[in-house]
Amino acid sequence: MSGNSDVKVCVFGSGSFGTAVATVIARNGFKVCMLTRRSDVAKTINGEHRNPSHLSEFSLPPNLTATESNEDAVQGCAFIVHSIPVQASFEFLKERAEIIPAGIPIICTSKGLHTETLETMKEIIPRALGRQQPCAYLSGPTFAAELMKCLPAGATVASEDLDLAKRIAPLFASDWFRIYTTVDVIGIEVGGALKNVYAIMAGMAEGMGFGLNTAALLVTLSCRELNQFAQAMGADPTTLSGLAGMGDLMLTCMGGLSRNRTVGVRLGKGESMQDILEDRKKGLAGVAEGVATAPAALKVADRYNLRAPIVRTMAKVIDGSLTAQEALQALMKVPANSDLVVGATL
Amino acid sequence: MSGNSDVKVCVFGSGSFGTAVATVIARNGFKVCMLTRRSDVAKTINGEHRNPSHLSEFSLPPNLTATESNEDAVQGCAFIVHSIPVQASFEFLKERAEIIPAGIPIICTSKGLHTETLETMKEIIPRALGRQQPCAYLSGPTFAAELMKCLPAGATVASEDLDLAKRIAPLFASDWFRIYTTVDVIGIEVGGALKNVYAIMAGMAEGMGFGLNTAALLVTLSCRELNQFAQAMGADPTTLSGLAGMGDLMLTCMGGLSRNRTVGVRLGKGESMQDILEDRKKGLAGVAEGVATAPAALKVADRYNLRAPIVRTMAKVIDGSLTAQEALQALMKVPANSDLVVGATL
Repeated sequence: MSGNSDVKVCVFGSGSFGTAVATVIARNGFKVCMLTRRSDVAKTINGEHRNPSHLSEFSLPPNLTATESNEDAVQGCAFIVHSIPVQASFEFLKERAEIIPAGIPIICTSKGLHTETLETMKEIIPRALGRQQPCAYLSGPTFAAELMKCLPAGATVASEDLDLAKRIAPLFASDWFRIYTTVDVIGIEVGGALKNVYAIMAGMAEGMGFGLNTAALLVTLSCRELNQFAQAMGADPTTLSGLAGMGDLMLTCMGGLSRNRTVGVRLGKGESMQDILEDRKKGLAGVAEGVATAPAALKVADRYNLRAPIVRTMAKVIDGSLTAQEALQALMKVPANSDLVVGATL
Repeated sequence: MSGNSDVKVCVFGSGSFGTAVATVIARNGFKVCMLTRRSDVAKTINGEHRNPSHLSEFSLPPNLTATESNEDAVQGCAFIVHSIPVQASFEFLKERAEIIPAGIPIICTSKGLHTETLETMKEIIPRALGRQQPCAYLSGPTFAAELMKCLPAGATVASEDLDLAKRIAPLFASDWFRIYTTVDVIGIEVGGALKNVYAIMAGMAEGMGFGLNTAALLVTLSCRELNQFAQAMGADPTTLSGLAGMGDLMLTCMGGLSRNRTVGVRLGKGESMQDILEDRKKGLAGVAEGVATAPAALKVADRYNLRAPIVRTMAKVIDGSLTAQEALQALMKVPANSDLVVGATL
């Protein structure tokens, strides 16, 4: 790792995933500086090597520092990691367009579709900065807490410039973290955005008391639907059968309680979308990206004339026009492209 | 369901999955008769509508009966469901070749490779019977206990004769059970056999204390490897991205404690394969099909000259020449076809 300590990496955002990737990079010997808007977070990270708001049970490496100053954060950095939620990214980047050095690669870890413009981060970043910027995208089945524990994992770095992806990979790669590279940015972004909608559905099935057979069925159907989106949007299908597609979908739908899955579980137990959204306004629940992505994904399905039964059904659950039970019943009856048999008479 | 009660279905085997599929078919109104070698099982099923050995907490439908008599079981049946373990199937079918009516379709639910001959059930059945028999194969992510509870699920029926697959599907299909049909028998068989090897590996990672990131990585890599086998053996890759491939793999690797996964967990905790096999001899553990499949899969990998790093590594774990820890370390370092980066120097 000699030489890495001369290279500075700036991380935008001090949320859970931002903290985890900053830690991964710092452990690889790089000098990492996180930009946070909260002075208490910066102070505790610098003084106690701990993020008081996220993953606070973990010690952070001493070569990971934090600042509230945009200028200090980017000063002299060789790479920027962007871990700000999609819906807030345009404003965030636009405000900082002038202090972000024009040639410095941005590695984006945020995934989703902008609710109004239907843009992915690939489109949001240059529009916000008012220029082209070298960009890459990190995606894969990576729960933040498990990255903190160095449990074996894998992820993909995508960039239209493969050489850039290969230069970026060593920031993250280690004996326990396999990093693949690809040029298929669209595949990575579609997978990352839509998985959150499918995770709400998987949570819903769990909330209704269904089991692993149901989860495996729904994830498999989601993966097929994801492939239809990806192909319509110009992605490479092999991306979606890899870590950033199927791998991430499996993790998000079957493992742990992500925010999206939690929204689904509540819907499945009979709560209304309205109640859940009000809790969020009261600060009782985090931002579930899938809630914003579902109506955007519906518009994309319309634009490309896709059947997309799961996205269409979930958009109705999220706008309140279908209950969880009605949605699952409808999905079980969707005719398949191939030879699905429903009913039981010879 | 009118008319179904005139149709008799015979089920070979009274194990957990045999009992579950027999129940699914009986609930669809068909007359089901299970063949069991145990008189107490037959007696309790007929007297108390309960299988005393498997899934004993569930009531069985009154139109599901059991017998020890081969002749009574097959007498007048329109279909036979074969739920006997792969390694025992040749002897089982050979002994009954004469009483099995020649034109009656056999629907096989057993999956694996014969340890010595490397045959799949598609090859074992005609060799055992000494003739061609109409055959179909049921596969998908279906835990038996969840089928008993009618929790939503899906599976695939494969037959080289698509019309036969379509005639068989209604035995299983219902509002909560989606059945797809395909002609890709090889794809179904390869997926069903190899998943048990991959499940041992997933269990091993769990036994070593790894998390969901690791599981998602390993399942994704397994799915890719499965595809290499399938393509080499002449299967359709879309089969492996469906319920009988990815769906079943996901369920077997990530959900519940199947026998295969349990063997893996014990290996991951540091027990030797020898100890685990001795428990099995003492009757303390069930048959983990993956233990028999791993060396057979290795031979298949050699025959087709496949890289197959997971199967090759797991075969070494199972023959005792690698520990779980060495195996996982080796797998994390396997170079990928595409652009894997290991190490952390820019």
